[in-house]
Amino acid sequence: MAFVVATYRVEAARDSLEKIAEGIAIGLTVGSWTDLPATQQAEVASRCGSVEEIRVLEETSQGTLAEIKIGYPEENLTDSLASLLVTVFGKLSMDGNVRLQALEIPDSYRRRFPGPQFGAAGIRQLIGVERRPLIMSIFKSCNGQSLSELAHAFREQALGCVDYVKDDEIFFDESLAPSIERVRRYGEIAREVAEMTGQRTRYAVNLTGTLPELFEKAERLVEAGADALLLNVFAYGLDVLAALARNPNIKIPIFAHPAVSGAIYSSPRTGIAAPVLLGDLLRLAGADVVLYPSAYGSVTLDAETCRTLVERLRQPSDIHRSVLPGPAAGLHPGMVAQLYRDLQNECIMAAGGGIQGHPDGIAAGGRAFRQAIDAMEAGEQLEDAALRHRELARALQRWGVKA
Amino acid sequence: MAFVVATYRVEAARDSLEKIAEGIAIGLTVGSWTDLPATQQAEVASRCGSVEEIRVLEETSQGTLAEIKIGYPEENLTDSLASLLVTVFGKLSMDGNVRLQALEIPDSYRRRFPGPQFGAAGIRQLIGVERRPLIMSIFKSCNGQSLSELAHAFREQALGCVDYVKDDEIFFDESLAPSIERVRRYGEIAREVAEMTGQRTRYAVNLTGTLPELFEKAERLVEAGADALLLNVFAYGLDVLAALARNPNIKIPIFAHPAVSGAIYSSPRTGIAAPVLLGDLLRLAGADVVLYPSAYGSVTLDAETCRTLVERLRQPSDIHRSVLPGPAAGLHPGMVAQLYRDLQNECIMAAGGGIQGHPDGIAAGGRAFRQAIDAMEAGEQLEDAALRHRELARALQRWGVKA
Ligand SMILES: [Mg+2]
Ligand SMILES: [Mg+2]
Repeated sequence: MAFVVATYRVEAARDSLEKIAEGIAIGLTVGSWTDLPATQQAEVASRCGSVEEIRVLEETSQGTLAEIKIGYPEENLTDSLASLLVTVFGKLSMDGNVRLQALEIPDSYRRRFPGPQFGAAGIRQLIGVERRPLIMSIFKSCNGQSLSELAHAFREQALGCVDYVKDDEIFFDESLAPSIERVRRYGEIAREVAEMTGQRTRYAVNLTGTLPELFEKAERLVEAGADALLLNVFAYGLDVLAALARNPNIKIPIFAHPAVSGAIYSSPRTGIAAPVLLGDLLRLAGADVVLYPSAYGSVTLDAETCRTLVERLRQPSDIHRSVLPGPAAGLHPGMVAQLYRDLQNECIMAAGGGIQGHPDGIAAGGRAFRQAIDAMEAGEQLEDAALRHRELARALQRWGVKA
Repeated sequence: MAFVVATYRVEAARDSLEKIAEGIAIGLTVGSWTDLPATQQAEVASRCGSVEEIRVLEETSQGTLAEIKIGYPEENLTDSLASLLVTVFGKLSMDGNVRLQALEIPDSYRRRFPGPQFGAAGIRQLIGVERRPLIMSIFKSCNGQSLSELAHAFREQALGCVDYVKDDEIFFDESLAPSIERVRRYGEIAREVAEMTGQRTRYAVNLTGTLPELFEKAERLVEAGADALLLNVFAYGLDVLAALARNPNIKIPIFAHPAVSGAIYSSPRTGIAAPVLLGDLLRLAGADVVLYPSAYGSVTLDAETCRTLVERLRQPSDIHRSVLPGPAAGLHPGMVAQLYRDLQNECIMAAGGGIQGHPDGIAAGGRAFRQAIDAMEAGEQLEDAALRHRELARALQRWGVKA
């Protein structure tokens, strides 16, 4: 019998830890044990959770901080992410002082989920980039802009030779520029630009709308030639992502945006740790790229959490492909050496201001990123490459080098 | 032009509050302002958020705790809850020290959501109970039980004359007792029992499965005679609930379970406040009943938060019906006077152990609850009613009276 093992961080009186652990193991599986007649106890024994470990971390002002590992029989779970989430952190999430810290999924259960249909290797194959990190440019402004204004902004980004351009995740209203028209229009522009630059830029379109119509819309966008879908997974639900990943008609990568996830991972004593949320769960559900607020820029995930998250995205598996990590938030070309040291080549660097804020314009911003990456691939220092590349030089002048 | 107004709690340096507020108002709507050419500024002005208020609450060790109100133009939003969530708390949720504390929805936007199809009044009409609070009994144990064992447990609960019986929310695996068979079997039992007791007990079946199949399954359950659907909304997504509420073929109430929501509301400095999450958003999306961990029992929501939550569920509106609050977690008959004082008659009291742990059995547990409620309706003290009702007397003996 296979178990999903959840690790919780709990703060409580030391002598209550065992009772808490047993309460979780029984309460979140068979409900109660002592109330059951002996015949039923035998029947449901295989459905009962088990306490795998109780490990004291430290004494705190509130009591003892401990990690409790509970095993949940796979038999209680189904092919929905909801079954997993509700089982391991449904009622328990409301206990006030428990955090879901880690999740181990047995292979038999992993097999029941789609996982990334492309993943890191599949995306490389699809776009024909063998080794270097990919670059994604983020539309800065979408709301209220006409299709032709947006098309102009797409063109400038494509001229920067970035691999992908993604919509602003807050771009929902389609009255001025419907997503299907954006896909068509940007596709034409990308082909025109590729004839000049040799680099075809792809577009990750924000998949929005009501349910269940969204599923139909995804197929229409694919038919219209969409290169990739961007999904606000934590606003729509993990099973929405899984449904898209399972759909054989959707033969393009899905980029998971972390919007709203901070409401779940930000507190150290409650909620769900970012590596579980953005790592394990998004990979199970089928994200090919996971965007996350990197530790380098303006925002919040610390270096240790980012490291663990990336480990979960890349953890070797015979069943699910590796996800391509998409560090974002505050990235600029002067950070590329640091990104390389921490993530090596296997990532997609996502930048908004760090491309579009380039002193010589958006196209120069994309090219500066690409020059920085090529320098790394050639084993060169950023500063040395800047001697030959005006765009990179101007970017380093503007933002400096983070070493 | 109508605005959704979000209130955030922010902890920061006092002299940075204005800049933070402007950063939110612009960053979450039009992306950037100063970068836009003047012609585009004019065009997108109607899409730009506005700072409505900055109010200092207190000085803390980290700086200043303040409330910031931002207005978001309805034009940026669509008919999906995802558009609302991502706009008001997408990227912002990852800022580390911001909490979404309240949400004001203008009527024009409210109209674009289904709201409760039954709500408190509709459910009363449907089941023919005019005034008293409703009682819901919660299956204690579901996983691993056969259909006949579950049917037996349903029968005992129905004999207690409760209005609804709901599945355990962790009941996902259908291998032993498919939901459609449960609906049929429990329905037969409910009719048999009603012939004896005069009270027909209804069944809220846990709607589970993968997407998009879940939508189809909901219709099949309705056709099979389901009385109500139970949905783990925060595991599946708010737009899944809205899709069910919008579906004209689903002509039964939807009960929203709060599982997983604690991962979002539990931290005082991050996440989304429970009254927004379980109140405003569930009502917009179309929950008829909202279950929540009441302040009376074992779990976490404090009295003030519960009060605000219930206010949001019942806030007078010409557009959306009132939701029936479903206090749960640790309720027993000795609490009914307190529940009455705080919620009056307009609620559905949900109990698991407080019914099934009755010393004389499950049916006695249900009847004790009902006797307690009838006492309140008659303006009687619980202790006085217990002189005439053995089941209530034994319940008060077992659990005491909470005054
Ligand atoms: Mg953005
Ligand atoms: Mg339960």
